[in-house]
Amino acid sequence: MRLATIAALIEHGLDGLVVENIAATAGVNKTTIYRRWGTREALVADALVANSGEKIEVPDTGSVRADLVGIARQVRDAIIAPASRALMSALAGGRHHPELQDIGHRFWAGRFAAVRPVIDRAIDRGELPADVNHDAVLSHVLGPIWFRVFGPGHDVDDTFVESCVDLVLTGVRGRAA
Amino acid sequence: MRLATIAALIEHGLDGLVVENIAATAGVNKTTIYRRWGTREALVADALVANSGEKIEVPDTGSVRADLVGIARQVRDAIIAPASRALMSALAGGRHHPELQDIGHRFWAGRFAAVRPVIDRAIDRGELPADVNHDAVLSHVLGPIWFRVFGPGHDVDDTFVESCVDLVLTGVRGRAA
Repeated sequence: MRLATIAALIEHGLDGLVVENIAATAGVNKTTIYRRWGTREALVADALVANSGEKIEVPDTGSVRADLVGIARQVRDAIIAPASRALMSALAGGRHHPELQDIGHRFWAGRFAAVRPVIDRAIDRGELPADVNHDAVLSHVLGPIWFRVFGPGHDVDDTFVESCVDLVLTGVRGRAA
Repeated sequence: MRLATIAALIEHGLDGLVVENIAATAGVNKTTIYRRWGTREALVADALVANSGEKIEVPDTGSVRADLVGIARQVRDAIIAPASRALMSALAGGRHHPELQDIGHRFWAGRFAAVRPVIDRAIDRGELPADVNHDAVLSHVLGPIWFRVFGPGHDVDDTFVESCVDLVLTGVRGRAA
């Protein structure tokens, strides 16, 4: 059912998601879906959580630059892939659906928590100042990538990904100096 | 009709937009809407263009920091306001609707072109290196703001807006040094 839901999200977006069609793809009756999930949004939320849980690999290369580039590349690859793009669009548009908005907040809190050790290790190695704001660093690295994909729709190649990391590292160190 | 469309976008989002309801709000028959705009997406696209055209004020304070902070604050205020947030969500989710996607690309191309003189003037004053990439600077300043609103849903206060500008200015200058 989750795969059918995600396939429908990719093809039609949240606004074109029809429970009857998901039921048909999965070979069940739509009453089965409503009995188990209650609402269309709960069905989507469940698919989002199941699909997004295990995907991130947190690098530990010994270099904050390489670690952050590795994370930023994963995010770039995720948000330009049709499946994840559909999920992210659903989350970003989720303010009309409290269940999705809640899932979105938990999703990001989990991701930020998972990559925070990368910043901690960089501080331990003396690569970043001790008072650096973990969430701000991640927002500054990932924000421009996210913005280019969902805003102007520009390409995000490896050079741009690396420029995001380098600009933040130079900026954070310059501020501290 | 545009106001009725935008009001419906704010209240229901693109996925909950029902042409019949917009027609009722505007006091016309839905066939009038379909005759003039053809599709629901064309109606939304028209409202988006009409609503977003005249809003940006391009500062010219004599300081690149003050100019960029002024632009970034306008973008922050725009994307957290319900009307503009609804428009931006519709644009970001527009990949299932070529008309909206096209509007989105033109919207951002227009905004980037409008604020490019801010970077040119900074180069003329010697505040930024001559080889700076205009669009990259804007993506780096605006991206983290956009990401925090549409991704994790964090607050974006003036301190964060200023930190985006300062980090980019320090990073760009550090790179050039």
